[in-house]
Amino acid sequence: MIGRFTLRTTARNQLIDVSAPVREFINTSKFHSGLCVVFTPHTTAAITINENADPSVKSDILKKLNESFPQEDGYRHAEGNSDAHIKSSLVGCSETIVVENGDLILGTWQGIYFCEFDGPRQRQYIVKLVGG
Amino acid sequence: MIGRFTLRTTARNQLIDVSAPVREFINTSKFHSGLCVVFTPHTTAAITINENADPSVKSDILKKLNESFPQEDGYRHAEGNSDAHIKSSLVGCSETIVVENGDLILGTWQGIYFCEFDGPRQRQYIVKLVGG
Amino acid sequence: MIGRFTLRTTARNQLIDVSAPVREFINTSKFHSGLCVVFTPHTTAAITINENADPSVKSDILKKLNESFPQEDGYRHAEGNSDAHIKSSLVGCSETIVVENGDLILGTWQGIYFCEFDGPRQRQYIVKLVGG
Repeated sequence: MIGRFTLRTTARNQLIDVSAPVREFINTSKFHSGLCVVFTPHTTAAITINENADPSVKSDILKKLNESFPQEDGYRHAEGNSDAHIKSSLVGCSETIVVENGDLILGTWQGIYFCEFDGPRQRQYIVKLVGG
Repeated sequence: MIGRFTLRTTARNQLIDVSAPVREFINTSKFHSGLCVVFTPHTTAAITINENADPSVKSDILKKLNESFPQEDGYRHAEGNSDAHIKSSLVGCSETIVVENGDLILGTWQGIYFCEFDGPRQRQYIVKLVGG
Repeated sequence: MIGRFTLRTTARNQLIDVSAPVREFINTSKFHSGLCVVFTPHTTAAITINENADPSVKSDILKKLNESFPQEDGYRHAEGNSDAHIKSSLVGCSETIVVENGDLILGTWQGIYFCEFDGPRQRQYIVKLVGG
């Protein structure tokens, strides 16, 4: 089973919790056990798993990434978004999560995040379920 | 097949080789071929694959991560572990390894590591095998 | 299905697009739907997905990684390649890509890259296909 999702980001750098639509897709697919891969087909975005409780974790992650990989840093790429490409490769464009008994095995504080590093834009991600 | 494992870390930052229990789980499961996903359900820990020979590789990795992402850095999150959340998203909370002929396909120098970034604590990881 | 590939890198730090051999392997395997895992068994290399159009994106990624994680930085590991081990754990030694209708689901600008961080060397990577 494969699901295709879109979202609109509203800032240059933003973490958006997509756990709910991923869980809903597993539920409506009646998928019981295996792997769930969440993948984004963009090169200036990423997928990560991190804390879903205190929103300051999200802002701290984005702030530190911006300090470590600033937008202007003597880059050659003319589009002005080399920082976003670097963040994308470091955070990674997918996550693989285990599914058992029809639900994601995530920790109490874990949420799945779409990471925008060059927004605001219309964006996509894919959810693929493989049984086993 | 799914296996659930616990371990106790003994330092704030620590890399612990978990290759042996993962291999033993594949062996006792009589799993022959497919994918092995090692996943940790924590947001201040990670899973990585790196050198299992010279222990100074582990200490160099932790030292440089601490220098790049120090514990105190003007963060808003009040728990004092934003550095651990950032390291978790950069290193990633899972690894996917190929299994053939009943064993992990790892390089000669590759070991699977549980990465503690906010210890010492009791921690968990999951091993999921999907055939193919 | 599993494929084993070799390549020769020509610089200490280098990104080499391996999308074409991965796609060809899927095609000759007549694999229709599931997951494609690209994995490298080295601890000073990595696999990533990033832009395949403007080559300056590749050079910007490598330049910034070198600035953030320089080769000489007071490391204990005597081989002089601790920076490569760190980059390997941050970028990651594998990528998981969805396959549908016999082809990789990649974005328009996405290519799969073998990342050399301690070359030039003879290197390997593995492609594993798991249906579902």
